[in-house]
Amino acid sequence: MTGLLRPHHDGSEGYVSNPAPALGETVSVFVRAPAGSRVSRVHMRWVRDGEPVFTSAVLDRRDAGGQWWRAELQVRNPVTPYRFLLRTAGGAVRWLTGCGLTSHDVPDSTDFRLVSYAPAPAWARDAVVYQIFPDRFGKSAAADSRQTPDWAVRCGWDEPVAAQGPLKGTQWYGGDLDGVTDHLDHVAALGANTLYLTPFFPSRSNHRYDSSSFDQVDPLLGGDTALVRLAEAAHARGMRLIGDLTTNHTGAVHPWFPAERDLYYFTPDGGYESWLGAPSLPKLNWGSPELRRRFARIAQHWLTYPYALDGWRIDVANMTGRRGAEDWSREAAVLLRRAVQQVRPDALLIGEHAHDATADLDRNGWQGTMNYAGFTRPVWSWLRAAVLPFDDFLGVPGEIPDRDAGALVATMSAFAAQMSWRSWASSWQILSSHDTPRIRSVVGDAARHEVAVGLLCTLPGTPMIFAGDELGLTGINGEHSRTPMPWHRPETWDRGTLAAYRALLAVRRAQPALRAGGLRWAHASGDTLAFLRETRDDAVLVVARRAAGEPLRLAGLPTGVSGENLYGGAGELKVAADGCIEISGDGPTFQVWSVRHI
Amino acid sequence: MTGLLRPHHDGSEGYVSNPAPALGETVSVFVRAPAGSRVSRVHMRWVRDGEPVFTSAVLDRRDAGGQWWRAELQVRNPVTPYRFLLRTAGGAVRWLTGCGLTSHDVPDSTDFRLVSYAPAPAWARDAVVYQIFPDRFGKSAAADSRQTPDWAVRCGWDEPVAAQGPLKGTQWYGGDLDGVTDHLDHVAALGANTLYLTPFFPSRSNHRYDSSSFDQVDPLLGGDTALVRLAEAAHARGMRLIGDLTTNHTGAVHPWFPAERDLYYFTPDGGYESWLGAPSLPKLNWGSPELRRRFARIAQHWLTYPYALDGWRIDVANMTGRRGAEDWSREAAVLLRRAVQQVRPDALLIGEHAHDATADLDRNGWQGTMNYAGFTRPVWSWLRAAVLPFDDFLGVPGEIPDRDAGALVATMSAFAAQMSWRSWASSWQILSSHDTPRIRSVVGDAARHEVAVGLLCTLPGTPMIFAGDELGLTGINGEHSRTPMPWHRPETWDRGTLAAYRALLAVRRAQPALRAGGLRWAHASGDTLAFLRETRDDAVLVVARRAAGEPLRLAGLPTGVSGENLYGGAGELKVAADGCIEISGDGPTFQVWSVRHI
Repeated sequence: MTGLLRPHHDGSEGYVSNPAPALGETVSVFVRAPAGSRVSRVHMRWVRDGEPVFTSAVLDRRDAGGQWWRAELQVRNPVTPYRFLLRTAGGAVRWLTGCGLTSHDVPDSTDFRLVSYAPAPAWARDAVVYQIFPDRFGKSAAADSRQTPDWAVRCGWDEPVAAQGPLKGTQWYGGDLDGVTDHLDHVAALGANTLYLTPFFPSRSNHRYDSSSFDQVDPLLGGDTALVRLAEAAHARGMRLIGDLTTNHTGAVHPWFPAERDLYYFTPDGGYESWLGAPSLPKLNWGSPELRRRFARIAQHWLTYPYALDGWRIDVANMTGRRGAEDWSREAAVLLRRAVQQVRPDALLIGEHAHDATADLDRNGWQGTMNYAGFTRPVWSWLRAAVLPFDDFLGVPGEIPDRDAGALVATMSAFAAQMSWRSWASSWQILSSHDTPRIRSVVGDAARHEVAVGLLCTLPGTPMIFAGDELGLTGINGEHSRTPMPWHRPETWDRGTLAAYRALLAVRRAQPALRAGGLRWAHASGDTLAFLRETRDDAVLVVARRAAGEPLRLAGLPTGVSGENLYGGAGELKVAADGCIEISGDGPTFQVWSVRHI
Repeated sequence: MTGLLRPHHDGSEGYVSNPAPALGETVSVFVRAPAGSRVSRVHMRWVRDGEPVFTSAVLDRRDAGGQWWRAELQVRNPVTPYRFLLRTAGGAVRWLTGCGLTSHDVPDSTDFRLVSYAPAPAWARDAVVYQIFPDRFGKSAAADSRQTPDWAVRCGWDEPVAAQGPLKGTQWYGGDLDGVTDHLDHVAALGANTLYLTPFFPSRSNHRYDSSSFDQVDPLLGGDTALVRLAEAAHARGMRLIGDLTTNHTGAVHPWFPAERDLYYFTPDGGYESWLGAPSLPKLNWGSPELRRRFARIAQHWLTYPYALDGWRIDVANMTGRRGAEDWSREAAVLLRRAVQQVRPDALLIGEHAHDATADLDRNGWQGTMNYAGFTRPVWSWLRAAVLPFDDFLGVPGEIPDRDAGALVATMSAFAAQMSWRSWASSWQILSSHDTPRIRSVVGDAARHEVAVGLLCTLPGTPMIFAGDELGLTGINGEHSRTPMPWHRPETWDRGTLAAYRALLAVRRAQPALRAGGLRWAHASGDTLAFLRETRDDAVLVVARRAAGEPLRLAGLPTGVSGENLYGGAGELKVAADGCIEISGDGPTFQVWSVRHI
């Protein structure tokens, strides 16, 4: 059955009168029951001070989308879980939760949830993040005159990046922050509006996750003044700028270590805790009140004038504060959130998470995560190349599994169901990053790459683009993917892929439904995926195919609908007399249609 | 496919070298891969300080159950989530988590988990709990001479209990604790070994959840000395005795209220918070250090000589400590757990929970819950009568839905998957209680009642029997089910039902696999349910039918197996040449077979 015939709710603005309510507010939540679903009675269950409360929903209105049932809940607790109980004319009784309709009882973990903590800033809804690894993005005129640091192996911009071996971490290409400033035209022309820089603090590696200071910008990157220049240039264009803060560990060369013993974990045998056992990365002790004070100050310092960063991506947020019997992870997240809020209420705080961030979200800390688990993995599994040049699935042993569209939807839905809609929408959806193979190497060719970018630009969440992906660069692991940008070799750029990024980001920019709309899966099987993004006023239909196949016939669109092609298709979308629309079986393809009542 | 052909793990002793490890221990976990499952490679993923770690499993041994794969994890955190990644000869890659095998990625919430907090006491594993509502169980010789309290309407033992209306809470039948002591023979003959008394503190109602003191036993029940007599009599028989502590609220008549303002929540309008708005039950403020001190002392007082209770059932644990922006629920649970542990390391702490307790377990507080969500509801939905004399599903609007065996397994599995095996096994499985209709009124007749009791006695978890259920008493809601025990009218007892309780509890007592074994679902469809309970040395096959149907053919039992009937069937269980066993289609039926290699 197409998902469009099923009763639906999600936390988007079409279904919730206020997705970011204050404590004490009354909020209306809605269920859309398409005509064929035969819903005859709706209760909403919400949890109030730990106890379930049932509220009878009323039929609010009917429109081409079907019946809209409405119920009110009072925002009494910071997080209010809620779900619906639906009866149909045939007598069936089903729950509607974040994991869809079920005919048996399900635990609360997939309840929808309203969150009254401060939401991600309004600008984040329209953000398109462009990730820059400063050593590899651009070199300013001053760069070549800098002296090679003692830890580094100086590399020419065209030298290949070593995927493994002793050069890992030490290959120094000498990119700098003025080199970023020099290329903002490219970022703007792409359609990105938010720069995310991996760490700019001094360290003894090219990645700088082993910081030796949080108080200055690495002189190799141009120092504090280069960051000011970049921030001013970005802000002058209306762009935002996000930093990368390592809260789990410092470099062993940091002056805090080992003298300030309370800030780290020393073991009885004279050793110390470190990130995954790497001696260069001693682990920080968030049980220390002094450490907390310092990080609050650090987080605030760079968000204020003259740097005025617009937020932080928190490195290894999943491990920060966790060690043995201790778990200060929530305290760390709440403290950083509060610190940020004090100086910049409009700043964004994103927690990196290696596997499942859902338990760490909606707790007044991270406002979103880097969504490898709920986006990257399912997209990779659906679009992977027949033969892969690497054997790793983001840390899971073995190569990327080959899974169908049903598995993609199942995975995305399972992870989305365990967080609030707004945490999902504020999370960064990622095709590749400095920690992964590049998407082009995952999918193998430009056609599937385009499908991947299409999903990135049309599914809920904030697109994050790793610089160079838009040129079709390749890479077989995180190290190898940290490719210098081939500015001076435009003949190597994949112009078709670049055009697809630009066009798809433009569609996203033009369509409110792609940034703020709810999500209804319309079809998912084998090689074909279709979904609707909808606000109260706009609707966009997306069809993605990884390979050619049978034409797709979709039921459940309201009658009297016409669709204008926005990307990848041809002509108009028409609903036949039987209520179905038909889309050709071409593939791989990515098509976007605006859907309007006629 | 029968579940017996699928790879399996659960947290029971056959699959975990130590289900209650200390921090620092190394624990082996096992996956059983039946021959037909074609498993070729197993990894275990565990989470260590917030980061996933993959460990390659080794083939430990082969036996009639198939291959046993083994992997080790280090218990570094109080709770260690783990799961398995299975590859099969055909190339499929699947996760095995608490919700079974999945061909797509799933969030961590259903990971198996090892918990290093103090486990439930050893005796709880073999406990059969008998719930007594003191006003309605037995009257000692002294009872009739007591004066009727001013809040009460005195009732003769045979007078009907009002299901609703003004008599609710005020009908006073005058049962007392010596009346419980008088009838311990009945409890022992039934096969129960743990008495759970609803509150015995003074109050102004027959249910006593509106306590006016936690420092003495209600004189209407015989006072402190009657409790000492009961405790001594129970303990002399080797029985355990559990009390009922109301931590969410007191009665408005409690001397703390309203004078000690820090212990409650007063509102700006001069009012106060109370349980679901009932003015007689002002809500306690667990933010108060003084309240915490008092409850620690109260919890300890009754566990020590001469009362020596063996544990507490915590009333409304789901609301305790939760109010608006405050959530002290974990602090309350941990404090009570620690207080209990100090004076009685062998005591049990069970939290009542109205819906989904899973988020409140495995946190060093409650060691189990009253498992309405994961046991009562699915059993009721499967065994409900065609016509019900009431219209309520434990607070969910509408009558009990009519669901098949697949829904029962889906519900039980979904809730079990979100807690540790030991929390599931220590939770109280309930057919009815003083808060619900009686099971007999739910299922409608003795035949289905027997099936329900069979499930209670053979599924994982601690059976809790509401006094009177074993006599076939009826009741249409919690109030109405608080029936005085008809000791003097033995002609009204349903002797067949009583015999079934005794026999099924005896089977449970005799079969270690029913108390400590793992659980593999063998079959679930429509009217038929079959499962195996297994320890390393013993196995028991259970077949339950709610109605007659086709014979059941089960594949997947090891070849060379013979089964002796322990309950409800006839003769021997034989495995045919094709590896299947066949069980006749009679029903309703409940059958238990021991399964042995021959």
